[in-house]
Amino acid sequence: MSQKRTIFFLSDRTGITAETLGHSLLTQFEGIEFRQINIPFIQSGASARRARDMINRVAQEEGMRPILFCTLVDEALTAIIAESEGLILDFFGAFINSLEEELGTSSTHTAGRAHGMANVHNYRARIDAMNFSLRTDDGVAEKDYEKADVILVGVSRSGKTPTCLYMALQYGIFAANYPLIEQDLERMGLPQVLQPYRKKIYGLTIEPLRLAQIRGERRPNSRYSDETTCREEVRIAERLFKLEKIPFLNTTTRSIEEIATRIMHETGLMRRFF
Amino acid sequence: MSQKRTIFFLSDRTGITAETLGHSLLTQFEGIEFRQINIPFIQSGASARRARDMINRVAQEEGMRPILFCTLVDEALTAIIAESEGLILDFFGAFINSLEEELGTSSTHTAGRAHGMANVHNYRARIDAMNFSLRTDDGVAEKDYEKADVILVGVSRSGKTPTCLYMALQYGIFAANYPLIEQDLERMGLPQVLQPYRKKIYGLTIEPLRLAQIRGERRPNSRYSDETTCREEVRIAERLFKLEKIPFLNTTTRSIEEIATRIMHETGLMRRFF
Repeated sequence: MSQKRTIFFLSDRTGITAETLGHSLLTQFEGIEFRQINIPFIQSGASARRARDMINRVAQEEGMRPILFCTLVDEALTAIIAESEGLILDFFGAFINSLEEELGTSSTHTAGRAHGMANVHNYRARIDAMNFSLRTDDGVAEKDYEKADVILVGVSRSGKTPTCLYMALQYGIFAANYPLIEQDLERMGLPQVLQPYRKKIYGLTIEPLRLAQIRGERRPNSRYSDETTCREEVRIAERLFKLEKIPFLNTTTRSIEEIATRIMHETGLMRRFF
Repeated sequence: MSQKRTIFFLSDRTGITAETLGHSLLTQFEGIEFRQINIPFIQSGASARRARDMINRVAQEEGMRPILFCTLVDEALTAIIAESEGLILDFFGAFINSLEEELGTSSTHTAGRAHGMANVHNYRARIDAMNFSLRTDDGVAEKDYEKADVILVGVSRSGKTPTCLYMALQYGIFAANYPLIEQDLERMGLPQVLQPYRKKIYGLTIEPLRLAQIRGERRPNSRYSDETTCREEVRIAERLFKLEKIPFLNTTTRSIEEIATRIMHETGLMRRFF
């Protein structure tokens, strides 16, 4: 019988940090079914006690102590959680002392700094980047290529739009998007409109079979989603990338996070905020 | 003189976990300037040694040891990084033993699980959610409200679009978007098209002055960005929310992460993947 365990993410703000780190650790364990509960915005003794009681209820019901990934900054609130029957993994406690010692200064112990109050500069950077991506999606605003940090090129449904939006929202990168359409593929060579910007270009490619499947969900039994079409488009696109020495990445088995990070890393782009 | 320190995020895949947790900790220290360098995709001895040498170079140049946030899973690679002169904060090492003990099983020690190989189910869920958000942005496809998990309602530029896209990409949530335009505000009462879906509606509001500023960047000196217009629109929108008992949130000082998390938390929506 496979083990089932309940996991709590406990935080004073969004819980994004607790979830990210907890999830990274949990992926290292196979054959266990994890029920994951996020309790964000624990900002008072009352809400900490409610969380503690919920943890104890689960411990009672399951006869197993829950595992708690905790990023509470306020030690008094952490102490309330620590009264519960769960196993507390205190992320803040684990590292803050080493850091204080190394930096020779006390931490501010301020809750919710990571994803809390909007920093006006950051907010603007990401909204500008997002609006840029939305505006240039599918190559509609060619004059904007000048402003782009990077221009993703690839056949329809190779992963350009989600990657652009992810880069905009997470990193404030101005990512534009140029879909290779039939004329581009027939003519061979870099589309004229892109030629002034070749240094910003990055290619995306994908396995033809996966592409056919993705396109088929949108337009089943069409020429667009036909395996032969997909195979041919991908072949020509990849030949174009090689001929023009455009760096490119196969997106088939990669998450959006990985595609975005690889592009940032390979092109040397820097995120605009954290 | 303010202290400057160099921070490295070292990981075998994207570095998102290392950056998230490192950044959370660093926000607790004020008056120190942090230079943050992400070295992702450390998957071989050679790349670990390159990272180690770079850390040592920085230590030499700065006469201060860099701080290393490390999420490498492979112990042999971590050992190479630990040879460097930096202060290593080993996230994996800090918690994995407690977890192994608690779960009574060994971890798989597999690199890059958190943001690595695309899980086809997750990939589809987020792309479907993203396409849904793009399609329903600014209320163009009313029949889609049926499919929505949540419908964000607010005046133009109150933060609906970035929140919808964030919820789609991070949580796979189908978030639609209904902008309150002049007619809606004049008529008072919930717009007819939304009435069947009132349980899914969540309101966004914003400080009128901030709204005027945001709108002014787009259309300066217009009626749209005029302070009086903004004040009036916000006043009526908030009255509508109260009258119709629609839960709502002021986005002015909140990051997109916090807006999204609060909506998820208050409406009880669950993320579709990690």
